[in-house]
Amino acid sequence: MNEIDLNADLGEGFGLYAFGSDDELLASISSANIACGYHAGDPHQMRATVERCLERGIAIGAHPGLPDRLGFGRREMQVTPGEASDFVLYQTGALQAFVRAAGGKLCHVKLHGALYHMASTDQALAEAIAGAVYRFDPSLLLFGLPGSRLETAATECGLGFVPEGFADRTYRRDGRLASRQLPGAVWHEDEKAVAQAISLVKQGEAATIDGGSVVMRVRTICLHGDTPNAAQSAKRIRQALLAEGIIIQRPTR
Amino acid sequence: MNEIDLNADLGEGFGLYAFGSDDELLASISSANIACGYHAGDPHQMRATVERCLERGIAIGAHPGLPDRLGFGRREMQVTPGEASDFVLYQTGALQAFVRAAGGKLCHVKLHGALYHMASTDQALAEAIAGAVYRFDPSLLLFGLPGSRLETAATECGLGFVPEGFADRTYRRDGRLASRQLPGAVWHEDEKAVAQAISLVKQGEAATIDGGSVVMRVRTICLHGDTPNAAQSAKRIRQALLAEGIIIQRPTR
Amino acid sequence: MNEIDLNADLGEGFGLYAFGSDDELLASISSANIACGYHAGDPHQMRATVERCLERGIAIGAHPGLPDRLGFGRREMQVTPGEASDFVLYQTGALQAFVRAAGGKLCHVKLHGALYHMASTDQALAEAIAGAVYRFDPSLLLFGLPGSRLETAATECGLGFVPEGFADRTYRRDGRLASRQLPGAVWHEDEKAVAQAISLVKQGEAATIDGGSVVMRVRTICLHGDTPNAAQSAKRIRQALLAEGIIIQRPTR
Amino acid sequence: MNEIDLNADLGEGFGLYAFGSDDELLASISSANIACGYHAGDPHQMRATVERCLERGIAIGAHPGLPDRLGFGRREMQVTPGEASDFVLYQTGALQAFVRAAGGKLCHVKLHGALYHMASTDQALAEAIAGAVYRFDPSLLLFGLPGSRLETAATECGLGFVPEGFADRTYRRDGRLASRQLPGAVWHEDEKAVAQAISLVKQGEAATIDGGSVVMRVRTICLHGDTPNAAQSAKRIRQALLAEGIIIQRPTR
Repeated sequence: MNEIDLNADLGEGFGLYAFGSDDELLASISSANIACGYHAGDPHQMRATVERCLERGIAIGAHPGLPDRLGFGRREMQVTPGEASDFVLYQTGALQAFVRAAGGKLCHVKLHGALYHMASTDQALAEAIAGAVYRFDPSLLLFGLPGSRLETAATECGLGFVPEGFADRTYRRDGRLASRQLPGAVWHEDEKAVAQAISLVKQGEAATIDGGSVVMRVRTICLHGDTPNAAQSAKRIRQALLAEGIIIQRPTR
Repeated sequence: MNEIDLNADLGEGFGLYAFGSDDELLASISSANIACGYHAGDPHQMRATVERCLERGIAIGAHPGLPDRLGFGRREMQVTPGEASDFVLYQTGALQAFVRAAGGKLCHVKLHGALYHMASTDQALAEAIAGAVYRFDPSLLLFGLPGSRLETAATECGLGFVPEGFADRTYRRDGRLASRQLPGAVWHEDEKAVAQAISLVKQGEAATIDGGSVVMRVRTICLHGDTPNAAQSAKRIRQALLAEGIIIQRPTR
Repeated sequence: MNEIDLNADLGEGFGLYAFGSDDELLASISSANIACGYHAGDPHQMRATVERCLERGIAIGAHPGLPDRLGFGRREMQVTPGEASDFVLYQTGALQAFVRAAGGKLCHVKLHGALYHMASTDQALAEAIAGAVYRFDPSLLLFGLPGSRLETAATECGLGFVPEGFADRTYRRDGRLASRQLPGAVWHEDEKAVAQAISLVKQGEAATIDGGSVVMRVRTICLHGDTPNAAQSAKRIRQALLAEGIIIQRPTR
Repeated sequence: MNEIDLNADLGEGFGLYAFGSDDELLASISSANIACGYHAGDPHQMRATVERCLERGIAIGAHPGLPDRLGFGRREMQVTPGEASDFVLYQTGALQAFVRAAGGKLCHVKLHGALYHMASTDQALAEAIAGAVYRFDPSLLLFGLPGSRLETAATECGLGFVPEGFADRTYRRDGRLASRQLPGAVWHEDEKAVAQAISLVKQGEAATIDGGSVVMRVRTICLHGDTPNAAQSAKRIRQALLAEGIIIQRPTR
């Protein structure tokens, strides 16, 4: 492997509220996950963000979340598989309208926050969501955790799955993310994130929280946009990957 | 003219809340305008209503409204043309996702409530909305008042426009609807509505509030679903039209 | 004990949407739990329902729920104790404004749906909520399950607690409600509900799902309003209690 | 007059979204208008902002707006007087709960955005709102434009009215604010705002947009918090007033 996709969540403001570092991230990424108005985002930010991505040739994905704007989609809610897949379809369709009206094509879907995690471990939820996305548009790619229930569900229904890695997080030995509550689960030093990004692409390995490493084959790396130095960090990772001769481009089927 | 489309607003409940007479109306109409989650409706009702329409061969349209669930989209809001067209695109895309996932095709868009009326008289609003719908999908039809700004805007941008009449309302001499506030503006007797439905199709004429008549060429008639005897009334209109040898079918471009 | 309070949830419509059987229930109850605009209800229904209760001398309580209108507050959400108590305070204050503006006095608080159940078993949640209600107005009564965490929390912070029983539900041997999923957990026959209502008042006993009985000392009985024959059922329970010489009146401290 | 109140809108963030310069403004004002969860704000920000104000001895007011979070309450909506007063009561009660739970007392109500302007010119709206506030708590003060319909309505129903001036805005000769659309309606230079603040207190005069002056007797001056140098500007006005020997303190009846 000598290529990778870099993705980030964009358009997560609402009305007069700004959020994240969209301007700077646009210069670093090859794929954007655009909030769809449930956990964040609104129709106007969706349209504007879609237009900016299309101008720069960035692949556009829907970033649907739970209907909990106050909690930013980060709180788990007791939803049924049918409810969850309806939420995903509603939001994905809404975003797709802006993409299509602007002359582009929707490329992928990446779940947000609590929904991302719930669909990683809950098989019925994962199957309902993957199935709904497939029925809507079988050419869409689904981003998610490698080895998750969502990967299995996507693969089984015929949907392309793009395994995602995190440059600034450590993993458990079984390949799942270490809980954010644990010390050492999140890295705040750019150097470590840069090194892990390179390792993910070149060696297919990530660091474990206990100081070892684990096999981690990913096709996209998530760059965070809501931390103080997020934009700077994203830029460094991009430059380091390019310096290694790695090609940064959107994933294909 | 010996054919007509009969349309009604469906899926206007929310969560546990029921609304209207969807079950009965489904037996009378050829086109359904499905609420899209702003003024009414939710993802689950959207999915279920789409499926019921497809089973019966009823043409499906999006029925977008203002973001005012409490006011059921009936209160005017001071929105810009850009805001309004973003609202329409968001909702239309969301509904289209359910139609596409169920193997169908979205046929039309009909604005709801205050937005319907605002786009009838406000040129900038009408142009923004018609343009957005066209860019999203140029094969969509736009339902609206004959002679309205929306008709002009749709026609000018190349979108098919389907003029709509009301069987239970009287008109002004200039062809606009008489205000609901005026006595005689709304008919509650089925016989009058039935007679006007036939007149709209056969003579291309509607009654004016002052007892005269006005030329009114329409291709679809709206059947209301939220009055006490709505379903019964819809059924009578349908049967009377059929008895006159009129074909009831979805509009085509 | 020869007296009991009968309570019901009122004002759970929203905008144009009606819900439940408020008209009929008003004739049967001595306490009303009024929805506060999160899971159901809106400012206009709150005002109107408050006025109707005051006219009839019915004690008014706030009925706060989770911020999930689509799910009617019945889905659990992962909220912190601080978030939950802020939700309760917000809604209780909003309702209290209508009560005060109409010249009345707010009497109690009864949590709704998932929040009711979460606060029954989660001690931190129960303490945060009871503490917030106490700081807002120490004369308020808190309704809830006898033996729940909420009872302990209310008692410890000095808030009056009113244990609540259900006429149409069976219990587990440990005094908790049998899960709705189990056959026999909910009774649909009025006779059984009537008999249990009398037993709750006279013997302080309720039926268990396995056919036995359990001690259940309650000071209020909840009458449901959202089932087909709810109003009729409520009326029968009221009349049977009166026929037994039981006094139906609001709880006091 | 040798004293004045300085007020600002606080707590206008939502969830993860920050807004304005609350930290800095807290050092300059004597009264805070706290958003109540409709146009902005949420229960958690309300609680936290109330606590910060009480710690500093700042008078707390409710800042209710229209139910339009996306439009930040700045878009006019076609609401009836009854709807508007219910909205105000709901929000004012919700905020009052946090004030009371924290051991404080709600001092005033200041309407937000479009509702502020609608109630300035629409008599029925003004009367409904003033009446509702009075019935809720007759000791509350209502902030608003001098000479507005709201002033008349408040005075007639027995509610204390506090006329408000703007340091950074020019007026029309009839004493109303010059439209923001006009050049010269908003001042961006601190010196002008400082001079007008002093003039408002000492001479009871404000500048007109055509270069003249108009009598403007106010008891509070609004400091904006959402412009780039808002906090700095607020601080300068405060210091200039103090340097003139003017006492800055909350208004009394």
